[in-house]
Amino acid sequence: MTEQKATNITWHHGAVESADRERVLGQKGVVIWYTGLSGSGKSTLAHAVEEKLFETGKISYVLDGDNIRHGLNKNLGFSPEDRTENIRRIGEVAKLFAECGVITMTAFISPYRDDRNAARSLLPEGSFVEVFVKVPLDVAEERDPKGLYKKARAGEIPEFTGISAPYEEPESAELVIDTSELDLEQSAAKVVDYLAQQGKLSA
Amino acid sequence: MTEQKATNITWHHGAVESADRERVLGQKGVVIWYTGLSGSGKSTLAHAVEEKLFETGKISYVLDGDNIRHGLNKNLGFSPEDRTENIRRIGEVAKLFAECGVITMTAFISPYRDDRNAARSLLPEGSFVEVFVKVPLDVAEERDPKGLYKKARAGEIPEFTGISAPYEEPESAELVIDTSELDLEQSAAKVVDYLAQQGKLSA
Repeated sequence: MTEQKATNITWHHGAVESADRERVLGQKGVVIWYTGLSGSGKSTLAHAVEEKLFETGKISYVLDGDNIRHGLNKNLGFSPEDRTENIRRIGEVAKLFAECGVITMTAFISPYRDDRNAARSLLPEGSFVEVFVKVPLDVAEERDPKGLYKKARAGEIPEFTGISAPYEEPESAELVIDTSELDLEQSAAKVVDYLAQQGKLSA
Repeated sequence: MTEQKATNITWHHGAVESADRERVLGQKGVVIWYTGLSGSGKSTLAHAVEEKLFETGKISYVLDGDNIRHGLNKNLGFSPEDRTENIRRIGEVAKLFAECGVITMTAFISPYRDDRNAARSLLPEGSFVEVFVKVPLDVAEERDPKGLYKKARAGEIPEFTGISAPYEEPESAELVIDTSELDLEQSAAKVVDYLAQQGKLSA
C-alpha cells in the first residue's frame, strides 16, 4: 500500500476483490435460494448442507426466519407488499454475503416468482442456485412442525401460503428436491454435488 | 450427521456454530463501526484496513454507501427517520456477517449516538469496535471529495450532516483516529493493532 498524506485521501475502492477472498477461502461466493411451502424442509435442508460443507472446510451461512425475521426484517409483516420487501432485503443481503465469498443459503417460503427472479437478477449468471424444496401440501400440513397449518385452517393466521395465500412454483429451478421422496442425507448430497459440479467448491 | 427419514424432519438448528467458522477462518467475527463526518475518510480507512488484513489471510468485508445505499437501503432517504432505519438495517446485517466469522466493517456517517448504540447492543460485549474517524469540519469541507459540502452550503442538499443536520460525536469509542494528523498507513495500522490486541486475529 502506498503511503499517502491524509489531507489528500483518495478512493481505494475494491482493493480487495471478491476473487481474492474466494482464493483464500477455496470456494466461490454463491447464493443457494431454497423456496417451498412452510414445512417443506427448507431450513433443515440448508443446515444439513451447511454441515456437509463445513466437514470439508467450506464456509457457508444460512439466512432464515430465525436470524432475519427477528432482526433485519422485524418491521415487516405478511401482506403481499411486506413479503415482497422481505424477499427484496434478503436478496440484497445474500448478494453481499456472496460477494464476501461465502456460500450463502436462504431458507424462506418466498412464494412469488417475481420476487425470486428479482433476487436472482442481483447475482451474476451461475451465482444464483434456486432450489425448489417440493413437497405435496398434504405432507407439509401433516408435518406441521410449528402448528401453523392448524392455526391457518382455524383462521387464526391470515394470508398463510398454501392455504389462504398463493405459492407460485418455480418454473426453472436449478434443483428440485422432493423431501417426501428423498431423505435428508440424500437431499443435502444433491445440493453439495451440484455445487461441486458447478465449480463452486474450489477457487 | 444421523440419517433421517424425510417424513420425520427435525430442527438441526445451529449445527455449525460461529465458533466453528472462526476456527476455520483463524479469526473472530467482529464489527468495526466507523463513524464520522462526510469526507473524514471512513471508507478509505476501512478499505486500507481490509487490505492490511487480507495480506495476512484474514477475511473482512466493508459495508459502505457503495454497496448499501444502492441496494439494501435504496428505498431510504435522509430524513431523521430514514437515517435511523438505514443504520438499524446496517447494524443487523453487520451482526449477521460477524456471526459468519467475518471481520465486518461499516463506513457510514451514522450521526446519531442512539443509532450507533443500538447497533452495538446487537453484538456481544467486545465484538463491536466503534472507531471515531475524527476530523475538524473545516478540513472535511476543504477535502470535499464528492463536492457535497459545496452543494450543502448552496442549499442544494438539505439535512447535510455538519452543515444543516447534527453530528453527535461518540463519547466512548474504542478508537479515535484523527485523519488530519495520522496518514492512512498509520490510521490503518492503529485499527489492525487494536484487533490483534483484542485477540480478533486468531481463533
